[in-house]
Amino acid sequence: MTKGRIFSGMQPSGRFHLGNYLGALENWVKLQNEYECFFSIVDLHALTSAFENTSKIPENIHNMALDWLSAGLDPEKNVIFVQSKVKEHAELHLLLSMMTPLSWLERVPTYKDKLQQLGEQGKDINTYGFLGYPELMTADIILYKAEYVPVGEDQIPHLELSREIVRRFNNLYQPVFPEPQAQLSKSSLLPGIDGRKMSKSYGNEIPFAASPEELRERVRLIVTDPNRIKKTDVGNPDVCVAYKFHKIFNKENVNEICKCCKQAEIGCVECKKRLAEKMVDVMTDMHTRRAEYEANPARVKEILAYGAERARKVAAKTMEEVREAMHL
Amino acid sequence: MTKGRIFSGMQPSGRFHLGNYLGALENWVKLQNEYECFFSIVDLHALTSAFENTSKIPENIHNMALDWLSAGLDPEKNVIFVQSKVKEHAELHLLLSMMTPLSWLERVPTYKDKLQQLGEQGKDINTYGFLGYPELMTADIILYKAEYVPVGEDQIPHLELSREIVRRFNNLYQPVFPEPQAQLSKSSLLPGIDGRKMSKSYGNEIPFAASPEELRERVRLIVTDPNRIKKTDVGNPDVCVAYKFHKIFNKENVNEICKCCKQAEIGCVECKKRLAEKMVDVMTDMHTRRAEYEANPARVKEILAYGAERARKVAAKTMEEVREAMHL
Ligand code: SF4
Ligand code: SF4
Repeated sequence: MTKGRIFSGMQPSGRFHLGNYLGALENWVKLQNEYECFFSIVDLHALTSAFENTSKIPENIHNMALDWLSAGLDPEKNVIFVQSKVKEHAELHLLLSMMTPLSWLERVPTYKDKLQQLGEQGKDINTYGFLGYPELMTADIILYKAEYVPVGEDQIPHLELSREIVRRFNNLYQPVFPEPQAQLSKSSLLPGIDGRKMSKSYGNEIPFAASPEELRERVRLIVTDPNRIKKTDVGNPDVCVAYKFHKIFNKENVNEICKCCKQAEIGCVECKKRLAEKMVDVMTDMHTRRAEYEANPARVKEILAYGAERARKVAAKTMEEVREAMHL
Repeated sequence: MTKGRIFSGMQPSGRFHLGNYLGALENWVKLQNEYECFFSIVDLHALTSAFENTSKIPENIHNMALDWLSAGLDPEKNVIFVQSKVKEHAELHLLLSMMTPLSWLERVPTYKDKLQQLGEQGKDINTYGFLGYPELMTADIILYKAEYVPVGEDQIPHLELSREIVRRFNNLYQPVFPEPQAQLSKSSLLPGIDGRKMSKSYGNEIPFAASPEELRERVRLIVTDPNRIKKTDVGNPDVCVAYKFHKIFNKENVNEICKCCKQAEIGCVECKKRLAEKMVDVMTDMHTRRAEYEANPARVKEILAYGAERARKVAAKTMEEVREAMHL
């Protein structure tokens, strides 16, 4: 018996880095042992901001599947699939749209924010589809009757809206859907190598797909205590970005590192070497899995096809209930 | 060789009357001999105003199919189907939504009008789906790559929007879709039996499904020249509602009727009897066909299933092209 069903999705934006991994994927890998999980590469959502150039989508989907599988998501245990391969998402989205007041979507706090934010980047995404983003997200979740959705703080209003739509549907027709619950995940926030938010646009990211060599090279570039010029200067771990990494990847030695740094008993080069080896260590299994899947892209395709088939079965069953409830 | 492909749809509102028949269906019956026609009972569109009570939808769909078949639409010649049975409508609608600026939909002139109009009737339909009405209409049309759409004047802005969306899609991706052309149909405007617009809400309609007996009874109630009290009074056909009916259903005798009326050579009762017999005559084949189909509801179901299957084939092919063009 699992603890219930989970749905979660990620946009194939082609920018998966170690920060993204820690932000969500690491948590998913844990969840797969306790819940029945539906994990979807939500390419339709990606269209809201990428509709003007979709040529990278297939590659991004493949890479995201590689990321997930390397991270350790089990394609048997979980249903892993690409959203657009299951037509029922679009179908349920359309049906829900008929009963969702426009004002519910307009008042989602992230809506105007994101519109402005992307507008500043020169992206005009004020489309009908973008306004309907949380509607599609709702369809994604409830199509599988998911009871839990792992979310960050910022997505709580989306989920609140989903619950409102579910209540409306269940009241108007039949109680087909459970109200999905937010499952707040405590994720570790990994900064970029320069200390700012990790983001490909800052060039400060560590790609999740980095090989051990690349990983070592990126760690070598992590910013340390700027006041520590010579090895004999004492350091202050609290202002050191590398130390933040230690706290995440090298928990068992973090106290010792702290002490040594403050007493100038370890140099930054050596300190970061130890960090790099630790990270390589932590990620060994992931590197191995990635190499296997990279050598066998057909297997990745197969996994996604298998996932889509399983997803479609559940989705079709839900849609039957929906159509019956709505007399369609 | 046909002159091209047509798509047209009607909402199963359950209020089909003789005015509706003359407004569109009569024209469709002609079009089926010249064009390759896709005629759809657009139940998803009906949800925009009927989402709060969908229980009548199945019955309304069946009745609309009966109306169409009685009118003489050939289920072999045309593809006759129910919109919601072809998932690709929802799929294409969602994809189009991603590239359709919100402002394009907001500025459709009928949008605010209809919102207000239904608001006055106490119907709150300001939903996301209602705003997307012309988006779904566009998907309906272009899913079958229809080149022509028979429309009334009021729908021209919708079609203009469809053409704009098509141009945007073709420019952004690949030229998959033809720009659908409006085909303005000259339909006869039949008033209600009291002279106002024919509408079930006025109780002045003649049901398209009326039997010969009901037809005669309804015609008997048509308002005539109010100044003609006695049979010996001369009449004025120009202010007579029955005369308007003669002009549509009894063209070959309309001059004679006019003359006799003005010279008090015919009484109104007699005049309307002649009208009724003419109408019964015109509709004999329709009555016969209706009786046949009414006796065999399974056959109607079969026809719709067969139509949906044919529609799905064409729709699936279009969606393949769409997905390829969009790299999905
Ligand atoms: S020794 Fe380690 S913790 Fe101290 S400043 Fe250098 S890199 Fe940072
Ligand atoms: S005779 Fe006929 S046309 Fe003249 S007023 Fe009577 S119903 Fe109308």
